[in-house]
Amino acid sequence: MAVYKTFQPQDALAYAVAHTSLFEGLDPATLSCSEIGDGNLNLVFKVSHPSGTSAIVKQALPYARCVGESWPLTLDRARIEAEAMLIESELCPALVPTIYHYDAGMAVTIMEDLSDHVILRQAMVAGEHFPRLIDDMARFLADTLFFTSDLYLDQQQKKARVAQFINPELCKITEDLFFLDPYCDHERNNVYPGFETRAAALWHNEALKAEVAELKFRFLTEAQALLHGDVHAGSIFVRQDSTKVIDAEFAYYGPMGFDIGSFIGNMLLNFCGQWGLMAAEDQRNAYRSGLLESIDQLWSGFAERFSEHLSQSTRDPSLNNLRWQSRLLRGIWQDTLGYAGCELIRRTVGLAHVKDLDSIADEQRRLQAAEQALILGEALVLQRHELDNMADVLAMLVDKVRY
Amino acid sequence: MAVYKTFQPQDALAYAVAHTSLFEGLDPATLSCSEIGDGNLNLVFKVSHPSGTSAIVKQALPYARCVGESWPLTLDRARIEAEAMLIESELCPALVPTIYHYDAGMAVTIMEDLSDHVILRQAMVAGEHFPRLIDDMARFLADTLFFTSDLYLDQQQKKARVAQFINPELCKITEDLFFLDPYCDHERNNVYPGFETRAAALWHNEALKAEVAELKFRFLTEAQALLHGDVHAGSIFVRQDSTKVIDAEFAYYGPMGFDIGSFIGNMLLNFCGQWGLMAAEDQRNAYRSGLLESIDQLWSGFAERFSEHLSQSTRDPSLNNLRWQSRLLRGIWQDTLGYAGCELIRRTVGLAHVKDLDSIADEQRRLQAAEQALILGEALVLQRHELDNMADVLAMLVDKVRY
Repeated sequence: MAVYKTFQPQDALAYAVAHTSLFEGLDPATLSCSEIGDGNLNLVFKVSHPSGTSAIVKQALPYARCVGESWPLTLDRARIEAEAMLIESELCPALVPTIYHYDAGMAVTIMEDLSDHVILRQAMVAGEHFPRLIDDMARFLADTLFFTSDLYLDQQQKKARVAQFINPELCKITEDLFFLDPYCDHERNNVYPGFETRAAALWHNEALKAEVAELKFRFLTEAQALLHGDVHAGSIFVRQDSTKVIDAEFAYYGPMGFDIGSFIGNMLLNFCGQWGLMAAEDQRNAYRSGLLESIDQLWSGFAERFSEHLSQSTRDPSLNNLRWQSRLLRGIWQDTLGYAGCELIRRTVGLAHVKDLDSIADEQRRLQAAEQALILGEALVLQRHELDNMADVLAMLVDKVRY
Repeated sequence: MAVYKTFQPQDALAYAVAHTSLFEGLDPATLSCSEIGDGNLNLVFKVSHPSGTSAIVKQALPYARCVGESWPLTLDRARIEAEAMLIESELCPALVPTIYHYDAGMAVTIMEDLSDHVILRQAMVAGEHFPRLIDDMARFLADTLFFTSDLYLDQQQKKARVAQFINPELCKITEDLFFLDPYCDHERNNVYPGFETRAAALWHNEALKAEVAELKFRFLTEAQALLHGDVHAGSIFVRQDSTKVIDAEFAYYGPMGFDIGSFIGNMLLNFCGQWGLMAAEDQRNAYRSGLLESIDQLWSGFAERFSEHLSQSTRDPSLNNLRWQSRLLRGIWQDTLGYAGCELIRRTVGLAHVKDLDSIADEQRRLQAAEQALILGEALVLQRHELDNMADVLAMLVDKVRY
């Protein structure tokens, strides 16, 4: 295990040559490397050869890149990310990038280059459609959540995994940015000019804040399954025939609905954002209807596959109980709606916005889209116990969003 | 850190002299030591001097004492016990024995001798009353559960504690003996002759098994607070003016209601057992009424103190929300009833019985008392969502137990 030092591009190149067989037989002088990271936390280098052979070298920095050295973070998150990705690869090999090498001391992971994919956020902002995306994500969520839970793992192994994925620093980011800031007048918030009154209404919605407290407490305490922890549209790479989930550094044991809700929340953010992104009304309506169908398909795909796992692969005889299993699924459903609502809210008034809203050129439309996101977010959080199925949810969405 | 070896009495004596200042200036030849353990897992030595100075030397064995070397257990449980007791001592110094010394390598803890106390189980079987017990236990439960939870601890510290108290082996014992065996025809069960048909009815109660699945899943996943994990009447030493909770080796992060429910379950086991223990009807009725009052007082004492902590000491601003806090308390209440019910059931048909039932001399009365315990246990598990307060619970108890 090497002693940590922050990589320059030439270090990343040399490291990739030394620690993978990808570039064997190639003249190192013909390789190139550039830093391509646009994320908040890490360095990301792409090492490539003109023949097309390439790899990504991802290195954690000892602080949050987006803030600087004043926000220190331990390098342990590189271990968590690599170990979570290895588990995800075992369960869904096609749906995560291949890991070639991991080095705890350098906080470095060398993985498959996904340059032939695009970031889902960017593609969705452009209104593109990916035929495999929803089925792939339903499979990713059902498989990673079921097979890392007490439903499948030996209890001793599951408890060891809980300890392995204790992730205080990254969880702290979620706990603050997702559950705290958006519900008070916090200096970290990012409220659009002209949106201050609407945001303040949120900060004084006591019924909502009680529900968010419940969702936060569940996030803090419910060690149900190994979550990816950050399933937003910027953590997914897509191609017409491929889906890859990246950036697992937020992985930890938490409530299953959090991952599913994060993803649905991001589809709904795009649904709201299209109000200001897609000019032609017919095209927009058709695209938005497609998004709602996708949400329906995501949940039903997840539920069907998860239920199959429940009936075929539940190992603990106490939990091999049909009545209880349907109650479990109902709880995951309610959590999913609640966390989707929180994602809508925090991306509208919190620190970390999304391009689905921010890139709307027309200010009036942007504020209307943000208003839609808040209305939907609040309704999902508040009504999650009454919404019995996705048809109810979609009817509620259509009813709430009148423009 | 010394290399582990199993102590003989003379080793425990020498160890206590070497590692505490208790016996300083006393001639070692005047000290005596005997093994007094009657538990299932450990060696317990009492080292004493005729003057009255004494200490307990508790050593974990690398297997379950009650089964033998065929059931290996790691010595890590001695660390967990000592570390949990140190946390409990900080929070409730009067309510746990003083720890003089702890040694991970030898799996040994030297602690205060409680020979001037009696084991609560034994005292309750004899129908004795301890005026401080209920208030002390309400305080112990409220303080240890609140101050080790996300309500009070910094989130980073709480997550580190979850990892510190990952306790797979001891949890496995609870998961099996508490939640699995009693609900099927398991070879570990211990069913009274003549009680087989009644036990079989339990094994086929599908509604009950679904509720037990829910309670087990919450036990497996809900990392709410550092539990003692084994608050039965054999883990409590009492004197008229003192209460001491011992044997924290089952400590781990779990649902708060588990500890409270375990204790209430043990009071109810005594309630049932007195049907066959206390011959004089008037005296028995008065004692049983007192037990029900104690249960009422235990919950109201816990709830009052826990609510005070909630309003005065909740550190996370998101959780400092009155509406949600009352929902949290309601959840703890329902868990409490459910786990109390499980305790009644598993002590009646499972492996580990209690003297409150087993020591009833009259066979007919013993079966009737066991029947009471099962009826109450089933009702608590099944009805915990409908029972709004302790008055409802006690009314239900009196209604269910017609003899």
